[in-house]
Amino acid sequence: VTLYFGSDNMAGVSPPILQALAAANAGEAMSYGGDDWTARLTTRLSELFEREVAVFPLATGTAANSLSLAAISPPYGGIYCHPEAHINMDECGGPEFYTGGAKLVLIEGKGAKIDAGRLAGVLANAGKGVPHHVKPAAVSLTQATEAGTVYSLNELRQLAEIARTHGLPVHMDGSRFANALVSLNCTPAAMTWRAGVDILSFGATKNGALAAEAIIVFDPAKAATLHYLRKRAGHLFSKQRYLATQLLAYLEDELWLRNARHANAMAARLAEGLGNLPGVRLNDPVQANELFVDLPEAVVAGMAAKGFEFYRWGAPTQGTHRMVTAWNTDPATVDKVLAAARESAMVSVR
Amino acid sequence: VTLYFGSDNMAGVSPPILQALAAANAGEAMSYGGDDWTARLTTRLSELFEREVAVFPLATGTAANSLSLAAISPPYGGIYCHPEAHINMDECGGPEFYTGGAKLVLIEGKGAKIDAGRLAGVLANAGKGVPHHVKPAAVSLTQATEAGTVYSLNELRQLAEIARTHGLPVHMDGSRFANALVSLNCTPAAMTWRAGVDILSFGATKNGALAAEAIIVFDPAKAATLHYLRKRAGHLFSKQRYLATQLLAYLEDELWLRNARHANAMAARLAEGLGNLPGVRLNDPVQANELFVDLPEAVVAGMAAKGFEFYRWGAPTQGTHRMVTAWNTDPATVDKVLAAARESAMVSVR
Amino acid sequence: VTLYFGSDNMAGVSPPILQALAAANAGEAMSYGGDDWTARLTTRLSELFEREVAVFPLATGTAANSLSLAAISPPYGGIYCHPEAHINMDECGGPEFYTGGAKLVLIEGKGAKIDAGRLAGVLANAGKGVPHHVKPAAVSLTQATEAGTVYSLNELRQLAEIARTHGLPVHMDGSRFANALVSLNCTPAAMTWRAGVDILSFGATKNGALAAEAIIVFDPAKAATLHYLRKRAGHLFSKQRYLATQLLAYLEDELWLRNARHANAMAARLAEGLGNLPGVRLNDPVQANELFVDLPEAVVAGMAAKGFEFYRWGAPTQGTHRMVTAWNTDPATVDKVLAAARESAMVSVR
Amino acid sequence: VTLYFGSDNMAGVSPPILQALAAANAGEAMSYGGDDWTARLTTRLSELFEREVAVFPLATGTAANSLSLAAISPPYGGIYCHPEAHINMDECGGPEFYTGGAKLVLIEGKGAKIDAGRLAGVLANAGKGVPHHVKPAAVSLTQATEAGTVYSLNELRQLAEIARTHGLPVHMDGSRFANALVSLNCTPAAMTWRAGVDILSFGATKNGALAAEAIIVFDPAKAATLHYLRKRAGHLFSKQRYLATQLLAYLEDELWLRNARHANAMAARLAEGLGNLPGVRLNDPVQANELFVDLPEAVVAGMAAKGFEFYRWGAPTQGTHRMVTAWNTDPATVDKVLAAARESAMVSVR
Repeated sequence: VTLYFGSDNMAGVSPPILQALAAANAGEAMSYGGDDWTARLTTRLSELFEREVAVFPLATGTAANSLSLAAISPPYGGIYCHPEAHINMDECGGPEFYTGGAKLVLIEGKGAKIDAGRLAGVLANAGKGVPHHVKPAAVSLTQATEAGTVYSLNELRQLAEIARTHGLPVHMDGSRFANALVSLNCTPAAMTWRAGVDILSFGATKNGALAAEAIIVFDPAKAATLHYLRKRAGHLFSKQRYLATQLLAYLEDELWLRNARHANAMAARLAEGLGNLPGVRLNDPVQANELFVDLPEAVVAGMAAKGFEFYRWGAPTQGTHRMVTAWNTDPATVDKVLAAARESAMVSVR
Repeated sequence: VTLYFGSDNMAGVSPPILQALAAANAGEAMSYGGDDWTARLTTRLSELFEREVAVFPLATGTAANSLSLAAISPPYGGIYCHPEAHINMDECGGPEFYTGGAKLVLIEGKGAKIDAGRLAGVLANAGKGVPHHVKPAAVSLTQATEAGTVYSLNELRQLAEIARTHGLPVHMDGSRFANALVSLNCTPAAMTWRAGVDILSFGATKNGALAAEAIIVFDPAKAATLHYLRKRAGHLFSKQRYLATQLLAYLEDELWLRNARHANAMAARLAEGLGNLPGVRLNDPVQANELFVDLPEAVVAGMAAKGFEFYRWGAPTQGTHRMVTAWNTDPATVDKVLAAARESAMVSVR
Repeated sequence: VTLYFGSDNMAGVSPPILQALAAANAGEAMSYGGDDWTARLTTRLSELFEREVAVFPLATGTAANSLSLAAISPPYGGIYCHPEAHINMDECGGPEFYTGGAKLVLIEGKGAKIDAGRLAGVLANAGKGVPHHVKPAAVSLTQATEAGTVYSLNELRQLAEIARTHGLPVHMDGSRFANALVSLNCTPAAMTWRAGVDILSFGATKNGALAAEAIIVFDPAKAATLHYLRKRAGHLFSKQRYLATQLLAYLEDELWLRNARHANAMAARLAEGLGNLPGVRLNDPVQANELFVDLPEAVVAGMAAKGFEFYRWGAPTQGTHRMVTAWNTDPATVDKVLAAARESAMVSVR
Repeated sequence: VTLYFGSDNMAGVSPPILQALAAANAGEAMSYGGDDWTARLTTRLSELFEREVAVFPLATGTAANSLSLAAISPPYGGIYCHPEAHINMDECGGPEFYTGGAKLVLIEGKGAKIDAGRLAGVLANAGKGVPHHVKPAAVSLTQATEAGTVYSLNELRQLAEIARTHGLPVHMDGSRFANALVSLNCTPAAMTWRAGVDILSFGATKNGALAAEAIIVFDPAKAATLHYLRKRAGHLFSKQRYLATQLLAYLEDELWLRNARHANAMAARLAEGLGNLPGVRLNDPVQANELFVDLPEAVVAGMAAKGFEFYRWGAPTQGTHRMVTAWNTDPATVDKVLAAARESAMVSVR
C-alpha cells in the first residue's frame, strides 16, 4: 500500500487482543452470550462506567449505531445529528433501515459538532404532537467527531440538557471513544451518562480490536428490546465469547488508553509538521487521531512522485485530504512523510 | 458445563483457523473487503464451486440467510420454507426484517424437508399476479436440515425444478453445509447450482470457525444489491481480512471436510448406541451431526443423577432431546455417555 | 356482470350514506380530523360501545387491520391468527409491512376459528424472553370469520382469556362486524371489550358505506402512536369529514343493523335452498352473509349454461364456491338462483 | 371558523364530483378496480397526457407520493428533494416508511425550488457504487411548490436532464398540479413526461375532489410493483369506482382547470392587495394558489380584533402567515379581508 494514513481500519489487531482470542479457545462455552467472558465484560464495563450498565457486544460500528437508534426511536421519529455524522454519511441508510424509517434531521455546526443554538431552535419549532411531522425522538452525537474534533464536557452537557428539556434521549457514537477520552483526559462516566448520554456505541475496532464494539445502555431497564433487535438483525454471535474476550483484553492494563494516546500523539505530530508548511491548511483543530488538511496540488503531486499518497476527501477540486493515525502508527513514518512534505512544499513555493 | 452435546456452537475454534488470524495480522490491509485475503477467497470459492461466484463474507448465519433472502425477494414476496426451518423458527423474524416484510409460507414435510408435492400444490394455487396475495418469490431449503437429515441430490433437484417452473430462485441455508456434503459424498457444485440452487448461506462457524459464514451468489451479475444491503445492515466488516482468512483456513487441506466427517461420525456413534436402548426413539434418520431422540423420563433422571444433562426440545412433555456433535467431540465422551445411558435404561426397565 | 353473489364489495352505497356526503358538503371544515363530524363520531361510538373510545376513521379494511396490529406489536412480535384470516391470506403482507416485519403465527381451527386448545399450547411453548424466537405480541380474531361463521361470546372470551394470561392484547378484524353482531344478537360492547378485545377494525364498507372503516381503541390512553402511524401511511384524510359522516349515517337509525340483518337473511335463504340439493355441501354453518359451498361440476356447468356464474374458491378441483350476500341483495335474485340450481341438480342427478 | 384562507383542504367538494358519486351508485361493479369507471379513467388520462399511461387511483397525496417513491427507489436509495418539500416536511416520514428506509437528500434553492447547480454538484460527488453511501435513486419535484411558486418548463427540463445524466427517474408531486398547469398555461404532457418526468402524483383533493388522487406512470411497463405495494399498504379500494368517478368528473368539461384558475386568481387578488400595504412582504412570487406573507404584528392584532385570523407559518417570531385560496373562494371574502388589512395597516403605521 502506498496510501499513507488511509484509515485506522487498515491497521491490524493489537497483540494482546489476538492472544486473548487464543486464550478463550479452551473448552466449551455456552453460546449466544451465556458464556463467562460476556458476564465478566458486563461487570468490567459497569465498573469502568461507575454504574450498572447493560452491554451488547457486536462486531461493527454501523450495527452499534443503528441498533442503538432503533432502541430509542420509533419508526416515525426524528433523530437530530450533524450532517457529517457517520450515521448520516457513511452507513448507507443503516439507521433508517433499523428504525423502520426514522428521519435524520440535520443540524449544522462547526467542526462537525452540532450547534447548540440551532438544535434548540429546531426543537422549539418541531411541532411536537402534530402527526404531520416526525416526532422528535433522539439526539445523536459523535465523539470524537468525524472532523477529528472533540466535544468538551461542557458542550456535551449543554446539548444533552437541550435534549432532556424536550424529553429526548441522547445517543453517542463512540466509534473513536478512546481517542476522545484521552483527549479530554476525563473518566468514561464523565464523558457519557454524567453528561447526559443515555446509550453509547463503544468502539474498539478502530483502536486495535479485530472486530469488536459494544452498545452500552446506561439504564439497563431500557435495554430489553435490544435483545430482540440484535438477534433478528443477525448481530447476536453464536460464539460470543470471542467478542467479549476482545473487549476484555482491550480494557486490560489500559491497552485502549495507551493505544488511543499513541494514535492521538501521532496525529498531533503530523498536524504540527504539516500545519507550518506554506499553503497547507488544517480544516479543524486536531483533537483526536484524524486530520483534514488542504494540500496545494503541487504538494500532492510532489508527494505522489516520492511514493506518498493520501485519501482525498469531499469534492476533488477542494484539495482536502483525510489522514488517520492508528494505535500502531510508526513515528518514523510520520517523520518520513513530514520530511517529504516539507521538500514538496519548498519546491512548490519556489 | 454439565450439558452434553448442547450445540456445535459451544465448541471452540479449530486451531488452524486461529493460527490464520495471527498470520493475517502482519501489516496494513485495505479495509471493507479491499484486502488480498478477500480476493483470494473469491478465487478459492470459485474454484471449489467450479464457476465464478460472488462472495460476501459475514459473521453469522442469520445475517447470511436474511441478506440472501432480501436479495431475492421483494417486500411483498412469499418465501416457501419448511416450518422447522431456522429462518422461520430461530431468527426472531430476521428474514421479515431484512426483506421489508416478506412472508414465510410454510410447507410441511417429513424429516424437516419440504414435501415436493405440497410445494407444487401450493405454488399452483398461489394466485400469481393477484395483488391480494404475496407474490411467490423464493424457495428456501436447509441442508443439512434442522432435523439432522440431508436432502438427497434427487430431492434437491426436484424441489429446484418446481421452483424454476414458477420462476422462483432457490436459496440454500447451508449453516451445516459441510456436514451435508460429506454425508452425500458429492461435490459442492453438485449439491448447489448444478441441482438448481441460486444463492447459498455457506456456514463455517458451527464447523470450527470463530465467526465466519459467506453468502455465495452463483450468478455474480445478480449480486449488486447485496453490497448495499450488507453495508446498511452493519455486516460489512472494516477489517474484513479476518473474516476472509478464517474461511481460507477452513477450506485449506480439507479442514472443513475433516471436521464435518468427524462430527457426523460422532453423531452416528451416538445414534447407534442410543437407538438400541429400550424406550429410546430416534425421531429421524441421523445423516449429519444432530440427533433428536426421545428419552424415557426415567432415563433422563438417571442420567442427570450421573451428571449428564441434555437439551430438551419442543414441548417439555414430549421427552425429546437434541444432541449435536462437533468437529472436536471426543469419542471417549460419546462412549461415556452411552455407557451411562445403557445403565440408566437398564435400571428404568427393571 | 353474470357473476352472482361475487362479493359484498360489489354492491353500491346505501342511500342514506350517499345523502350524508352531500349534507356534509356545506361550508368549510377543519382538515385532518379537526372537523365537527369527526368529533361527533367519537362521541357516537363511545356511546355505542358504552365507554370512552379513541377512533381513527379510515377508508379500507387492510389499513384498519395493518395499523391496528402495528399499534400493538413490535417489529419482532408474533401475531397469532387463523391461517384463513384476511390478514394472512388477502392483504399481500400488509401486517408485515406495517409492523416492520412481525410474524403471523398460524393457529388452525374449524370454521376459520382459532382453536383455543391449540392457541394455549403454542403460547405455552413460545419461548417467551428467548430472543431467537419472535416475541408473542398479539392475538387477532376475525368476526365474522372468513368462513362465514361467527365466534360465540364464550369462544371470544375464552380466547381473550388465554391471550390475557400471556399478556397479549387482542385485535378483532370486524370487517363484517355488523353481520356477526346481528347474528349473535348482542351489544357491541359484549362482543368486544367486555369479551376482552382491545382494538377493533370496525368495518362499514362491505355493509353499505362507500369507503369507511374505523380503528376503535378501547383504552384511549394506548392510541397515541396511531396518530403518527396513520399519517405516515397516507391514511389520514385531509377532508376527513367525509369519512366521519359516512360512519355517522351508517349508525343512524340502525342502518348498519338493518343492512346486516338483510344480508344475513339472504345468505340463510340461499344456504337453506342449496343445502338440500343432492351433491351440494355447505362447508360450514352459515352464520353471517357468506356461504362456501361445494357444487358438483355438472351443477356448475348447468348453472353457467343458464347464465349464472359463481366465484370459485381454493384449488379449482375442489368445486368450492364462495357466495356473499349484501345489504341490497334482492330476494328475487336469490330465488331465481335457487330455482336454477334445483333444475341443474335434478338434471345432473338423473 | 374564523380562520381565513386556512387551506384548500378545508373547502368542500365541487358539486359535479358529488353528483358523479351518486351517478356511479347504480348496480353492482367489480371490486378492486375491475370496474368500468377505472377503465375509462385510464383511457381518459392516457388521452389527456397524450400517451398510454398506467393509473393508480388513491385517496391521499401522502399515499401517492410515498408509493411513487417506493416504486422507483430501493430501500438503500437516496431521493433528492427540496427541504421544504411536502415529502420531507409534512408526511411524517411516509417516504421513508414506504421505501423501507430510503434517505431524502435535501437540495436547497429559492422559492422552494431545487437549485439545478446544487443538484448537479451533489450528484457529481455522491460516490455512486460506493456502498457506504445511499445509492442515488430519484429526484422529486413539487409542482406547484410548497412556497406557491411554479417551476417553468425550462427549469423542469434542466433538472430532469441532470437526473437523466445520472440515470435517475424523476417524480413530480402534483398535489397542486392543476394550479401549476394553468399558471404555465401548457399541456399536461409538456409539464410532465415531455419535460422528463417519469411518475406523477396527480392531485385532485385540494382542487375540489372529495378524496381522490392518482399515481400516473408514464412508462406502464414499470408499473407492475405498484399493484402489490398499493394493496399491502391498504390503498387499494374495494369499491374503487368511487375514486375513479371522482377523477372522471374532475376532468370533465375542464372542471379541474376552471377550479384551478379560480383559486389562482383569488390568490393573485389577495397578493396584489396585500403586497402594497406598508410593512407587508410577500416571501415569494405568487404563481399558484398560495401566499406566504410577512405581516407586522400590529396588523395581525388589528385583523384578529376584527375577527380575521390566519395560519402562522414557521417560527412564531417570523411573522409569516400562509394563505391558501381554493376552487370556491369567494371574491367578496377576499375583498373584505383586504379592506380590513388596509385599515389595520394604516392604524399600525400611524
